[in-house]
Amino acid sequence: MVRRAAPDNGERRPTIRDVAAHAGVSVATVSRILSGTYASAPATRTRVLRAVRELDYVANANARGLAGASSRSVAIIVNSVVSPHYAHVAQGVQDQAAVEGKLCIVGTTGGDPERELATVQLMREEHAECVILVGNVVADEAYRERMADYARALALAGSQLVLCGRPALGPDVPALVVEYDNTAGAHAITSHLLSAGHRRILFLGRRDNYTTPESRVAGYREALADHRVPHDPDLEVEGTMERGEGHRMIRERLAAGPRDFTAVFAGNDLIAAGARQALREHGLRIPDDVSLVGFDDLPPAADIDLTTVHVPHEELGRTAVRMALQRARDKSGLPERVVLGTHIVVRDSVRPVVPPDDPAR
Amino acid sequence: MVRRAAPDNGERRPTIRDVAAHAGVSVATVSRILSGTYASAPATRTRVLRAVRELDYVANANARGLAGASSRSVAIIVNSVVSPHYAHVAQGVQDQAAVEGKLCIVGTTGGDPERELATVQLMREEHAECVILVGNVVADEAYRERMADYARALALAGSQLVLCGRPALGPDVPALVVEYDNTAGAHAITSHLLSAGHRRILFLGRRDNYTTPESRVAGYREALADHRVPHDPDLEVEGTMERGEGHRMIRERLAAGPRDFTAVFAGNDLIAAGARQALREHGLRIPDDVSLVGFDDLPPAADIDLTTVHVPHEELGRTAVRMALQRARDKSGLPERVVLGTHIVVRDSVRPVVPPDDPAR
Repeated sequence: MVRRAAPDNGERRPTIRDVAAHAGVSVATVSRILSGTYASAPATRTRVLRAVRELDYVANANARGLAGASSRSVAIIVNSVVSPHYAHVAQGVQDQAAVEGKLCIVGTTGGDPERELATVQLMREEHAECVILVGNVVADEAYRERMADYARALALAGSQLVLCGRPALGPDVPALVVEYDNTAGAHAITSHLLSAGHRRILFLGRRDNYTTPESRVAGYREALADHRVPHDPDLEVEGTMERGEGHRMIRERLAAGPRDFTAVFAGNDLIAAGARQALREHGLRIPDDVSLVGFDDLPPAADIDLTTVHVPHEELGRTAVRMALQRARDKSGLPERVVLGTHIVVRDSVRPVVPPDDPAR
Repeated sequence: MVRRAAPDNGERRPTIRDVAAHAGVSVATVSRILSGTYASAPATRTRVLRAVRELDYVANANARGLAGASSRSVAIIVNSVVSPHYAHVAQGVQDQAAVEGKLCIVGTTGGDPERELATVQLMREEHAECVILVGNVVADEAYRERMADYARALALAGSQLVLCGRPALGPDVPALVVEYDNTAGAHAITSHLLSAGHRRILFLGRRDNYTTPESRVAGYREALADHRVPHDPDLEVEGTMERGEGHRMIRERLAAGPRDFTAVFAGNDLIAAGARQALREHGLRIPDDVSLVGFDDLPPAADIDLTTVHVPHEELGRTAVRMALQRARDKSGLPERVVLGTHIVVRDSVRPVVPPDDPAR
């Protein structure tokens, strides 16, 4: 696809050749100076910039080829880069983009579907080679329709939609999927607590209909069932995936009545960090009084000695880019969906329950 | 500036009107379906997509206006979004972009000047309303030349360069600058340690010629001088601004000989987190045995009870966007450089030195 700047009216616009002729230098020199390439003699630059002003020349997309920056970019769209989860996936995208000789562009939406739509459009217009959408969603019919529309619009523009940590859309939609196994990870970490004798395990961060917490709660429940431990819905506390929410959920729980749990499974590491702070404010030591586990294995985990589930964030981003670019080269025989594994990282936040007496109410 | 897709050869390319006529729907319907806007009847979509395929229509930049996504974007370019410092500035940019009704695009460079150059070019070609460059640099002549070229190239394209946490370039370069006071912050936190009786304060993260660590070391030295405490260059340890480096610097220091410091000033919070881990591995308690302070007040700080210097990261990002967009509306009377303040956040990582006996060698 070729893009050219065309005049709005009948007049001919000055070209880079006009600027070069006016300044008495080569087209390559004008291009270098306008594109911001390193060295150019000050006097030459002054002459070129004067010519630019006098001709009212507007640098445009034509400069791209001349400046040698014709490589396309890969795009990733996230709610926010402050969340370590998104930031580490974006880092994997950036790393693989660098390996492939592509630029990396991150669009941020603040979680607003309208901004997501506009950002996908922008990335498509800018000819991103692929557009990677990350994270937790309400996978309802409206969402599936929107993603299917994105996928088709991008495919028409020669680009490729990749869903990362989001559910697949169905065989008729041209989207690639890179997932990780939320349910298996939650099952493993819950089993870790159960094997240490814990029976009353508080789950923090239930959020119905959202794909990520829902599949983590599912793993929690499956592990309880596998260990023949009765499921108490009252142990599942609703909240979002933020540090402050972890603090709130524990604070409110301990204010509402005597402690009825020996362990806490925080829906992610940020919740765990907030929960830890609230537990300590109540004089509860981790792991001596309460065991605590998280999910993600992102920066706060190491600093708070947290046993958690490792999610291969960077590898998710790298795989998304590799799949999209391979597909652009050769459509045959490539998988459209990849599921990466998770594993437990044991630190120092879990203790076995010592006596067989249950501290439940 | 108008961009149009032009045919490569003499033939006329099919337009969105051809697609609409072929499918028997309105141009607006085609636009909505191709742009990925929410609702459209499946049968209509099928008809439109068939028309698109049969005509070999390629969606292009013309669709932008029709789809109503004509608002321009603001761009921020960072080394990496994994660094909380960059991520929080980018969050401020995203927040202010949303307030102003603009999209936010983050370019990541991995610290590679060639990728930075290509990313600036890309953002310019994509008509970003401003391009914000963040962070620590070697402010040599080559850097100043490169930034001046960026600034001029962006100004020619109707865009605006904003340097964020980087030094100003001089009056003849059309760049805005948003800084924060590194030296004053370092002076304040060093004075906090000195006031608690510490005389042997290890500085972790010296890096000559880099603007950010250099100005923090300067504040450290000025505070020592103000308190008439002799400056010992051997207490300044070289390293980069990463968690692993904090661990390495303490590990190597303690392996080399007896401890000759009572307090540690880590060049940022990540270094502090790594240093804390290494100190604890040596059986040293914080703050009972060693006092520790950092710089940034980013996520690890709260989790490790770190007394540190608060840098207004989000406000840096918000201010950068506000300055650039105000300047686009009205060039007169606006400041070209803003310096935001920093302040100490006291947590629980500093203890007064109890006896007057100096534990130095």
